[in-house]
Amino acid sequence: MSECLFCRIAKGELPVPFLHEDEEVVAFADIHPQAPVHVLLIPRRHVATVAEIGTEDETLMDRLTRAANRIAREKGIDRSGYRLVVNCNAEGGQTVFHLHMHLLGGRSMQWPPG
Amino acid sequence: MSECLFCRIAKGELPVPFLHEDEEVVAFADIHPQAPVHVLLIPRRHVATVAEIGTEDETLMDRLTRAANRIAREKGIDRSGYRLVVNCNAEGGQTVFHLHMHLLGGRSMQWPPG
Repeated sequence: MSECLFCRIAKGELPVPFLHEDEEVVAFADIHPQAPVHVLLIPRRHVATVAEIGTEDETLMDRLTRAANRIAREKGIDRSGYRLVVNCNAEGGQTVFHLHMHLLGGRSMQWPPG
Repeated sequence: MSECLFCRIAKGELPVPFLHEDEEVVAFADIHPQAPVHVLLIPRRHVATVAEIGTEDETLMDRLTRAANRIAREKGIDRSGYRLVVNCNAEGGQTVFHLHMHLLGGRSMQWPPG
């Protein structure tokens, strides 16, 4: 049993419905939503932080982004707009150390971004 | 002369110092910084929004991210932490319609992200 929460979710070990899944990426609703649409996109493979994406993996952020764009279209917020956020380490606001991209939309996002 | 502000910056037509440049990506300081470190990373090639990244360009977000990670290391905020943000269309907070990634750090970023 994996000890990483998001690894467990990606493996289907927890009762979390997927909004998207493919060979590399899984998406699910944020448990503490900050907007009408708030989805997390994670790689199935464990990568702790965005800073640790290796040069051997040159398309990971693009795969997460492509899945986010697809969900934004499905949720009908692609034209109104959305924000993609990746937090890295403590001051970035990262709380789960398995790389994840936030997709937020369905309201006007404010500035600064936190 | 290009009419897109960020295309003009990428071409060196405006007196904006680059914090990073390579074949595909240019980085420069945000003119209205929201954190001690606030850098914009853009592709040289004009792409209006993140929603319009095409399937023919499968590494664009990764190239922007890799440049952001490098600048974070150079600025000494890689361990303390940082946030990457991409705004798409009006409700996402996008104001310049040339895809750009924000790198913010040097302070504790708050939640929600705007």
